Amino acid sequence: MAAVETISEQQCFGGVQGFYSHVSEACGGPMRFAVYLPPKATQGPVPVLWFLAGLTCTAETFTIKAGAQRVAAELGLALVMPDTSPRDTGIEGATGDWEFGEGAGFYLDATEAPWRERFRMYSYVVDELPRVVAGRFPLDMGRQGIFGHSMGGHGALTLALRNPGRYRSLSAFAPIVAPASVPWGEKAFPRYLGDDRKAWARYDATALVADGARFAGTILIDQGEADGFLVNQLQPQRFEAACEDAGQPLALRMRPGYDHSYYFIQTFVEEHLRHHAEILCA
Amino acid sequence: MAAVETISEQQCFGGVQGFYSHVSEACGGPMRFAVYLPPKATQGPVPVLWFLAGLTCTAETFTIKAGAQRVAAELGLALVMPDTSPRDTGIEGATGDWEFGEGAGFYLDATEAPWRERFRMYSYVVDELPRVVAGRFPLDMGRQGIFGHSMGGHGALTLALRNPGRYRSLSAFAPIVAPASVPWGEKAFPRYLGDDRKAWARYDATALVADGARFAGTILIDQGEADGFLVNQLQPQRFEAACEDAGQPLALRMRPGYDHSYYFIQTFVEEHLRHHAEILCA
Repeated sequence: MAAVETISEQQCFGGVQGFYSHVSEACGGPMRFAVYLPPKATQGPVPVLWFLAGLTCTAETFTIKAGAQRVAAELGLALVMPDTSPRDTGIEGATGDWEFGEGAGFYLDATEAPWRERFRMYSYVVDELPRVVAGRFPLDMGRQGIFGHSMGGHGALTLALRNPGRYRSLSAFAPIVAPASVPWGEKAFPRYLGDDRKAWARYDATALVADGARFAGTILIDQGEADGFLVNQLQPQRFEAACEDAGQPLALRMRPGYDHSYYFIQTFVEEHLRHHAEILCA
Repeated sequence: MAAVETISEQQCFGGVQGFYSHVSEACGGPMRFAVYLPPKATQGPVPVLWFLAGLTCTAETFTIKAGAQRVAAELGLALVMPDTSPRDTGIEGATGDWEFGEGAGFYLDATEAPWRERFRMYSYVVDELPRVVAGRFPLDMGRQGIFGHSMGGHGALTLALRNPGRYRSLSAFAPIVAPASVPWGEKAFPRYLGDDRKAWARYDATALVADGARFAGTILIDQGEADGFLVNQLQPQRFEAACEDAGQPLALRMRPGYDHSYYFIQTFVEEHLRHHAEILCA
């Protein structure tokens, strides 16, 4: 396994907020990620909570804006924040569009040229990065949870639904729940995955639940009612209906007045962390 | 008074995080600032806590990175975050150096050309912006506190020491306490204020206390011991000695392991807000 390089480590709420880089096999180049270790990690392995960020974001976004370290320190949870795509790919068309390419990896393994060489965030987050962080930090990989925002909410839902037992707890802020049926996915999926909609369905939380995938526990989702993407891109009612039909426990909480931003996320991040800790630290 | 234009308003912890702009008389052009109103502000005027940011920062920095809104919402405090200088001044030499000019206003009124036309952050923060926000938001201007970080800690200390009674509570994170005697001030003060060191002393917290200025209460300062600027630029022991000589109450808390960043600030921001609320909300 390639070495992990420390970019920075800073004390925060008695723990350590670090940024790291390594050369990824899955993504064919250097990747950055962030880890927050709570004070309790000095005494032994702690549970791991993955946060997947949204379009345009990096490993820094949640780390800087969410105010999550305070609660993670208290609860004894490690946080791992991957980047949202490979960077500096040099692929024509990979930059300049915030909805596709760099910063918009959609947590999938691309199958279409030229994207399939580098845009393999599914394998990166599910397989490679867990090995990397497990080899480097005091993490209890038997107690993992996952959450995310928007495109990262899509990532959290699809990764958890496709890997039963891997993640014990699952939540999302304003997730894309049906990418195959909304403009963001309709734009990105053909370029990453080709025109076969069966391939798209493997990266669509609503389709996965309809096809029989289940999460062993209640899925928690918070969604702001003043979110400008709610009607056109997010449509949580699609996922709610699929879960209801399938008997999948879901707690979808609509939040009047809140938008799509990290001001929304920071307002409810403590509730999410406590939800994960109830399961992971039980 | 010129109109206040709303750039954005977003719900956060049940209150409203807003960004605004107006044309400043003191600074001769448009200025941006941020205000957080806690939920309690819908019931009537609330106390006001000013936060002054450091070199390179804007009205966004503390607003995004400090995690202060959660506590302000609970305590019923409004937060006002000014920018750190005028912007787009077009003055030669005003950009390109993070320690001087735009982003580095040092909360003073420049007396030297060409800076004196626009770089008047002292008058802006002490006189103009309070009138602007008092006319626009439900703020109890009889209950104001002030704090800041680094250059903004310098601003908070000097503004409060020079305006007895204006601010009832005062604190700082890693403040510049003796700018006239450290490289940052030795570089900026001659250009803003000329070569007369008596003029510099009016913007130097340590000199002000030595010259008889007092704050009616305990000044709270948190300082990280792993702060890379501690030895060369910050030197809190200078202020500590002046306060001790003068009988000025000071609580200087050295924090092992913490650096100069917002990971340090977010760790202790709740303690600062509670300190201010004990005085402002009493």
